[in-house]
Amino acid sequence: MLKTTIIGASGYTGAELALMVTKHPELTLSGLYVSANSVDAGKPISQLHGKLAGLVEMPVQPLVDVQKAASECDIVFLATAHEVSHDLAPVFLAQGCQVFDLSGAYRVKADDFYTTFYGFEHQHENWLDKAVYGLAEWNAKEIESAQLVAVPGCYPTASQLAIKPLLEAGLVDSTMWPVINATSGVSGAGRKASMTNSFCEVSLQPYGIFNHRHQPEIATHLGCDVIFTPHLGNFKRGILATITMKLNDGVTAEQVASAFATAYEGKPGVRVKGETIPRIQDVENTPFCDIGYKVQGQHIIVVSAIDNLLKGASSQAMQCLNIKNQFAQLTALV
Amino acid sequence: MLKTTIIGASGYTGAELALMVTKHPELTLSGLYVSANSVDAGKPISQLHGKLAGLVEMPVQPLVDVQKAASECDIVFLATAHEVSHDLAPVFLAQGCQVFDLSGAYRVKADDFYTTFYGFEHQHENWLDKAVYGLAEWNAKEIESAQLVAVPGCYPTASQLAIKPLLEAGLVDSTMWPVINATSGVSGAGRKASMTNSFCEVSLQPYGIFNHRHQPEIATHLGCDVIFTPHLGNFKRGILATITMKLNDGVTAEQVASAFATAYEGKPGVRVKGETIPRIQDVENTPFCDIGYKVQGQHIIVVSAIDNLLKGASSQAMQCLNIKNQFAQLTALV
Amino acid sequence: MLKTTIIGASGYTGAELALMVTKHPELTLSGLYVSANSVDAGKPISQLHGKLAGLVEMPVQPLVDVQKAASECDIVFLATAHEVSHDLAPVFLAQGCQVFDLSGAYRVKADDFYTTFYGFEHQHENWLDKAVYGLAEWNAKEIESAQLVAVPGCYPTASQLAIKPLLEAGLVDSTMWPVINATSGVSGAGRKASMTNSFCEVSLQPYGIFNHRHQPEIATHLGCDVIFTPHLGNFKRGILATITMKLNDGVTAEQVASAFATAYEGKPGVRVKGETIPRIQDVENTPFCDIGYKVQGQHIIVVSAIDNLLKGASSQAMQCLNIKNQFAQLTALV
Amino acid sequence: MLKTTIIGASGYTGAELALMVTKHPELTLSGLYVSANSVDAGKPISQLHGKLAGLVEMPVQPLVDVQKAASECDIVFLATAHEVSHDLAPVFLAQGCQVFDLSGAYRVKADDFYTTFYGFEHQHENWLDKAVYGLAEWNAKEIESAQLVAVPGCYPTASQLAIKPLLEAGLVDSTMWPVINATSGVSGAGRKASMTNSFCEVSLQPYGIFNHRHQPEIATHLGCDVIFTPHLGNFKRGILATITMKLNDGVTAEQVASAFATAYEGKPGVRVKGETIPRIQDVENTPFCDIGYKVQGQHIIVVSAIDNLLKGASSQAMQCLNIKNQFAQLTALV
Repeated sequence: MLKTTIIGASGYTGAELALMVTKHPELTLSGLYVSANSVDAGKPISQLHGKLAGLVEMPVQPLVDVQKAASECDIVFLATAHEVSHDLAPVFLAQGCQVFDLSGAYRVKADDFYTTFYGFEHQHENWLDKAVYGLAEWNAKEIESAQLVAVPGCYPTASQLAIKPLLEAGLVDSTMWPVINATSGVSGAGRKASMTNSFCEVSLQPYGIFNHRHQPEIATHLGCDVIFTPHLGNFKRGILATITMKLNDGVTAEQVASAFATAYEGKPGVRVKGETIPRIQDVENTPFCDIGYKVQGQHIIVVSAIDNLLKGASSQAMQCLNIKNQFAQLTALV
Repeated sequence: MLKTTIIGASGYTGAELALMVTKHPELTLSGLYVSANSVDAGKPISQLHGKLAGLVEMPVQPLVDVQKAASECDIVFLATAHEVSHDLAPVFLAQGCQVFDLSGAYRVKADDFYTTFYGFEHQHENWLDKAVYGLAEWNAKEIESAQLVAVPGCYPTASQLAIKPLLEAGLVDSTMWPVINATSGVSGAGRKASMTNSFCEVSLQPYGIFNHRHQPEIATHLGCDVIFTPHLGNFKRGILATITMKLNDGVTAEQVASAFATAYEGKPGVRVKGETIPRIQDVENTPFCDIGYKVQGQHIIVVSAIDNLLKGASSQAMQCLNIKNQFAQLTALV
Repeated sequence: MLKTTIIGASGYTGAELALMVTKHPELTLSGLYVSANSVDAGKPISQLHGKLAGLVEMPVQPLVDVQKAASECDIVFLATAHEVSHDLAPVFLAQGCQVFDLSGAYRVKADDFYTTFYGFEHQHENWLDKAVYGLAEWNAKEIESAQLVAVPGCYPTASQLAIKPLLEAGLVDSTMWPVINATSGVSGAGRKASMTNSFCEVSLQPYGIFNHRHQPEIATHLGCDVIFTPHLGNFKRGILATITMKLNDGVTAEQVASAFATAYEGKPGVRVKGETIPRIQDVENTPFCDIGYKVQGQHIIVVSAIDNLLKGASSQAMQCLNIKNQFAQLTALV
Repeated sequence: MLKTTIIGASGYTGAELALMVTKHPELTLSGLYVSANSVDAGKPISQLHGKLAGLVEMPVQPLVDVQKAASECDIVFLATAHEVSHDLAPVFLAQGCQVFDLSGAYRVKADDFYTTFYGFEHQHENWLDKAVYGLAEWNAKEIESAQLVAVPGCYPTASQLAIKPLLEAGLVDSTMWPVINATSGVSGAGRKASMTNSFCEVSLQPYGIFNHRHQPEIATHLGCDVIFTPHLGNFKRGILATITMKLNDGVTAEQVASAFATAYEGKPGVRVKGETIPRIQDVENTPFCDIGYKVQGQHIIVVSAIDNLLKGASSQAMQCLNIKNQFAQLTALV
């Protein structure tokens, strides 16, 4: 049994991870932590997340002694703010822990990326270099040999899983930048009070137009410019991405179908649905990414749907853990 | 044209009032105010409430000089916190303004009520004595001659309009206390960020069991004990109250129908629907209270529905203004 | 491995059962059926319920030869209309199958009950006599020796689990009938198109006042008159019941706490939360009933919450199966 | 007072029109009709649409004698199915009525359009030729002299109002087709029961990809190819359109701002909000189209929001009536 600790257990992704670790036949929950000055410190996690009652009752501890926490686990999930993950990861790595980081702190190896998009200067370039981007269906081999996995963002997961098969197969005419319109449930903003997330203020609306930090994450990992417009939707969880692209001259619907089939054959985390168009409801509370598409003339619309807290965060982190440790990919997830 | 000012224009009820005053053929908007230290001070109201764009563009001013504000209007709506209304009302009254207070500060004349339920000691007993409770369908005569109208709370409006006709007709067996279960949309909690009102945390749930301040407001004005259990619902606006009562021996369905018909004949703000059971959707964005009921044996279920921001607050305030100034009751409301 | 068949696999409860059977380590899915003339016949279940893709792909068959279906399974779930269950159960029982019926066909042994409330005359009184009412936390012993389990309705489950501990402990003053106000998600009406369930028409509203068939089901099994008012809520799944009762003279909060503790100690399906009031969100997609309460003077408000499709139907059916076959109660459910 | 009749009064747009006509100081309601065999025939409209109680109580009549209905009004709104409008319009026109048709029957003058996209052959080409497309902000002059106004579809209204200013100003590089992603509330599908609109089945999802009939309506009236992807959203009313376009080399943000300002100056139905991005909530229950946009490099995102039942249907129809009859454009609408 691998001792597994979760930092950031008061948030929504932390709660999902706590449930998964508890269910996992090869893992044992070794610790739940929140930041040292959190008002939640000391409370049972089931008091913060009522749905965990009877399932996970361990208290969330204030993270005072990071070294000690690291010495008491084999694996750590960092469900923490970007800056916090940036600082914590090296401590756990130095102790030999496997680190699965759900933040953006180790996702992109590009000059000025962190100063520009995250507002801090990266101090751990060696770890940034070694980090493997945990897009589970595409980087399984690299994940197997990684000690630090940077789990992709929610929008980047939905977007890349939809675009990458066509791009890798050379079918996309990139003179027209792929246009990604995506809508996320409010849980994407985390568990905290704000006017933006206030029940009466939520109403379908784009935000972060042309300046959301997931745009460069998507573009860098795809190696292709994209136009990315995120929207806040009036639902709790899920992301739907509708992607419009131009195909190269002469590309057929068969080539498209074949590109998706090839990309995801034997990959249990993606369900290619052909011309059946995904909807959020079918992926809610599941670890799946559903993908559908339609071709007309030179244009294609690809639609993908995920649960933002699961395939867009916690279940993809667990899927990476499963890959890394050679468990079946969806262990504890279905 | 009567000059009409709104204090508390950044909140949801203030925004509704601003719209109504603008529409009203006999009123002119003389001022919109927020508290002196509000971050919203100086902004056009349409920036705070996007739906007002093109309709009301006046900026909300910081309320620094109350005397001056009072001297510049004939009528004031106080859409302010209880303590604030408590302090402001006498200033406006002293200047001869008509005051329509949407808070709880002048609603209940009972010893210890404000210390027990509102946490402050009332300093203006003379005005408390003179204040008229603005339950429009029942107190029209008193409202006509009042200078200070205490507009009822949202739950008390829905509850009393449903119960009062039967109680006044002597049909209720009060050995069983009326059981009021009511569900309110989230806007009832006002326009501010909190974990409770956070989109992802809202889920049908009772709150304030046995200790909500609207219980004594209802009981005092009805003159009858009641059990009142409020619920938070997963919708933005509206209140539905389901009320279970015991009728006196031998009371017939005809007597019940007659009691409702008598109570609300010629009262345009209440729509008695008989055995057609009200639903929130039909009263949203309207100034109406819908009432339906069903009798079986000695029991009756009465159901009432209102828009909590309108009949439960702003439109009832305007209805009182209309009554007081002898305009048609629903002027500017339909 | 016990061969398990589901009749009524096109509905929401059928889909949940199919998932559970697939997850269950001691069961194997032996058949999915719909009525012989269903338009869904022949389709993979994952086409009817998109969320099952990749998890359960078996086609739903038209139920033409009931004898044959019965001969091919050890256990059957009837997720069918009342009349259909009434007819099918005896065929499966005659073949020695364990039958878990989610309909109302075998729930109540009272004269005229089926003619009055279900509109048909019961033809199988012997089986009605032998049927055990599957309220899992209260009838485990009887379920162990039953061949036919009548799984309780959704409202009756939420209501009885909340009331029964106090009633059995003799704490309730039944001169005031318990007042049950309950709100159900729209899935309670099943998977079919109707104006009532149409997205734009759903709005919090009571229905079936004084004549819902779950009232006599609750009253009969409790042995106590109740006033039951169901509501349709604007959410997909879940039931919240708010129950107002009068306690006998002198009953203390401690006696109440002790009654709940005694009733549910060691029962994993009920989470007694004391004065923490349940909310629907915490039980959604779980097999739990959450219960909280508050006492004031002689009155008590008890609140219970369940997922109507799970503890109110499918997971309680599976819980009964687990009890009957001596598996851990929540196997395949958490 | 102009006598105004509404055909199709049982639907959502018919109900909105009935309210508007009642409020309008220059109109009198002369008739409400449904199709001759409708189950709703004879009922008061307030029974079909509970929110109209106390406001409009006129019964909806079966439309048996069209000639007679036409002879009894000056103006008719056709809130009817496309084929029905196609047949009815000429009868009313022949009697000299002003006809405002909310269907698609007279919107597009292009060969094969009706056979291809609406499944019927157009029989009234002379009227189709004379019909004016009622995009109020752009065709006011033509509307003034039209007898038949074809009110635009909901998606086409939101799309064209957002794109047309830039296109007319020659700023758009149409080598990249404008990409329109739009999400509509469920009321867009009308008032009828269907699995698609069933509460439990609604979940954010694209539909009609590459084959929705509003694509050619938009493209024809803009004179520009577009890629249009409609989505069903989990809300009752409203449309949000997010539109991605390429600008011509060297186009500046100032030119864009100027194009919008010029287009909508003095047009009360459109609220240009600059970089403030519209949200559905702000236009719900209003006659406005809100427009915002952001430019980066050669790309622009324009976002528009309308109430699909109002600016996307009924209020735009009334706005056209107001223009035609030289009333203020938003009479009876704010």
